[in-house]
Amino acid sequence: MIQRPRGTRDFGPEEMERRRYLESIMRREASIFGFREVSTPIFEHTELFTLRSGPNVVEEIYAFQDKGGRDISLRPELTAPVMRFFVNELTNYPRPLKMFYFGQCFRYERPQSGRYREFFQFGAELIGNPGPESDAEVIALAASIMKRVGLKDYNIRIGHIGVLRGLLAQAGIDSVKAPPILQKLDKKEYDEARARMVEAGMSAEDIERIIEITGTTGPVAVLEKISGDAKEHLEAIFRILADYGFNNAQVDLGVVRGLDYYTGMVFEMDAPVLGAEKQICGGGSYSLTELFGGEKTFSTGFGIGFDRTLLALEREGYPAPAREVGAYVVPVGDAVKDEAFRITAQLRQAGITTEVDLMGRNVSKNFKYAASINARKAIIVGEKELAQGSVAIRDMASGEQKLVKKENILAELQ
Amino acid sequence: MIQRPRGTRDFGPEEMERRRYLESIMRREASIFGFREVSTPIFEHTELFTLRSGPNVVEEIYAFQDKGGRDISLRPELTAPVMRFFVNELTNYPRPLKMFYFGQCFRYERPQSGRYREFFQFGAELIGNPGPESDAEVIALAASIMKRVGLKDYNIRIGHIGVLRGLLAQAGIDSVKAPPILQKLDKKEYDEARARMVEAGMSAEDIERIIEITGTTGPVAVLEKISGDAKEHLEAIFRILADYGFNNAQVDLGVVRGLDYYTGMVFEMDAPVLGAEKQICGGGSYSLTELFGGEKTFSTGFGIGFDRTLLALEREGYPAPAREVGAYVVPVGDAVKDEAFRITAQLRQAGITTEVDLMGRNVSKNFKYAASINARKAIIVGEKELAQGSVAIRDMASGEQKLVKKENILAELQ
Repeated sequence: MIQRPRGTRDFGPEEMERRRYLESIMRREASIFGFREVSTPIFEHTELFTLRSGPNVVEEIYAFQDKGGRDISLRPELTAPVMRFFVNELTNYPRPLKMFYFGQCFRYERPQSGRYREFFQFGAELIGNPGPESDAEVIALAASIMKRVGLKDYNIRIGHIGVLRGLLAQAGIDSVKAPPILQKLDKKEYDEARARMVEAGMSAEDIERIIEITGTTGPVAVLEKISGDAKEHLEAIFRILADYGFNNAQVDLGVVRGLDYYTGMVFEMDAPVLGAEKQICGGGSYSLTELFGGEKTFSTGFGIGFDRTLLALEREGYPAPAREVGAYVVPVGDAVKDEAFRITAQLRQAGITTEVDLMGRNVSKNFKYAASINARKAIIVGEKELAQGSVAIRDMASGEQKLVKKENILAELQ
Repeated sequence: MIQRPRGTRDFGPEEMERRRYLESIMRREASIFGFREVSTPIFEHTELFTLRSGPNVVEEIYAFQDKGGRDISLRPELTAPVMRFFVNELTNYPRPLKMFYFGQCFRYERPQSGRYREFFQFGAELIGNPGPESDAEVIALAASIMKRVGLKDYNIRIGHIGVLRGLLAQAGIDSVKAPPILQKLDKKEYDEARARMVEAGMSAEDIERIIEITGTTGPVAVLEKISGDAKEHLEAIFRILADYGFNNAQVDLGVVRGLDYYTGMVFEMDAPVLGAEKQICGGGSYSLTELFGGEKTFSTGFGIGFDRTLLALEREGYPAPAREVGAYVVPVGDAVKDEAFRITAQLRQAGITTEVDLMGRNVSKNFKYAASINARKAIIVGEKELAQGSVAIRDMASGEQKLVKKENILAELQ
């Protein structure tokens, strides 16, 4: 047997039905919000991802050389590719430009529970202006998706990267020294963050202030601890989210996000049912277009971990609809086969999922197969009945069977 | 600017809408036929593809080593991955097992008009029995898809690999010498095929017979030129296709398909509107499971070139539906913003695609934006109207505007 590559998955029919159902709800909600789908290649020039995340990212991704000696990488995320596409070809679209995407991403790391080398991401990017309306719109879409897919228990935690950056700047920490500190705070590794702040020469008071602010969580009222533009911006976002019906969002000034390109609001969503690896969405406002050779733009976006969201739903007892086969057509004997195929074609033409015996089975084996594929009705095409212009239709659940005129089969099935 | 990799494409909003529309029709038709979706990884162990297509395939695909030293390749097609999945995990499903798939495939070759390094394939595989019913079911699905997507001009050409293989065997050509000859016949390179047959020691008479049979095309009646199992099998397929309403299929004994693993019926579909590169679908019955370490099974499948099919539809004037924005909400002044967001949320909740001013534009600029996104109605939320419990709704096509009570907005939009 040839195994599939480590850390990847195959999805069988039932799993794909569950996945496509979830995807279709996400897709529909994004569309209702006025976001439109875009799509980019599975691989990119490696440079795109090192520009976004630094040279070390190469160690965590599928980077290789193609036969022409080009450095290419399987995409580890979709924001950079979408922004590259925007810079190259979409700048003439009216603003705000609202885009969403869904697809595979890849990372080279040791596979572990719930983390795969090939995984799926659903995301959205809004390119427009730096106002709280744009940020709120993006958070509202992420939250509306979770609401519409039926996830019962999830948190929305919203912060602002400007708060900690501002405090660090006040404490004399420049934009070179700040990122390593912020990265530790992002991971809630406070001891190491403290050590780095001490090393950077910060006063004990400033350090404690930073740690305290990082721990600020709760309803919008906790913003009284801070002041300035970030406060006003966050308050406006919370007000709009309330207008949108989301009163469950929380302030969390400890949301930092690991990457330098975030510029203001940052947010995360998690599903407590997932335990330690509970984050299902992350996003914020950011600036990437200059990095990719374009003009500065204001953008806000998020990425939803599709696999984790599905897992959270399943842990909560996600009721994905089972597929339904409307009819299974059973010819009894070779003489009626042509008629069986004609009936099959007629039902399919009308949009009814219909299968027909392809194996030349006898009636009882055909009933067994019909049950195994979850067929609602079996249409038994027999010579005798056909001579009278009829077929027998059997309800697979009740076992009841009745004669139906050929011209009434469609009506009987609908 | 960072360019996308050579031979790949980005798809913008309009293009994605056209693509998703086509995909959804294909997906729906496969589902109506009782096929169910499966999905496999973007990359596989390279061995999977060399087993299927021979070691030379490595030169035409994206083959590389991952960081663990494993030989992996971006998939050049989906039949081998799906059959690997079947052998490893799906053998206990009731037969026939009917699967479909849609996704990116990759080949490393010089990009040229209509041929990309990243392309999309829609395909189906049926695992069941070797009867003509199974073959006909698969051809009928491919044809039904083309009919349902609205392709006006396409041909279905059906042959049988057993005919030429049988004649070659009769002429003393063994299964080692036959494939190179068949490959030349497949490409309709008759001079080279002749040369190889001469080289293999075939008589002039046998060679002419082979060339003549290869040129046999036309309605099912042309099958009188041959005899035996292949003839009966093809006749049964044509009869079932007629039952299914497809009287347009043609015999073409020159359809050989390049690969050794085909076992019987082979077919191709093409769209004349595409000119030289007109093939949009290819398939047949084949045997791969033993090669992948499983038991022998009978299978039939096809792959549709999604990009070419879309191109053919577009050349015929494919009427893909334009997206529609139901409403664009325009707050006039800051005081009514919250109300504007609440109205937006209400409409979205009801499933109406709704956008709201995020840029703080004035009314006339907002109308311009509303027109640019093809909004049907603009909902103007003004302080004065709101005091009377109303908003103004403007029909964007006619420019007519009327006052509507807040509680009637939804009804007005539906």
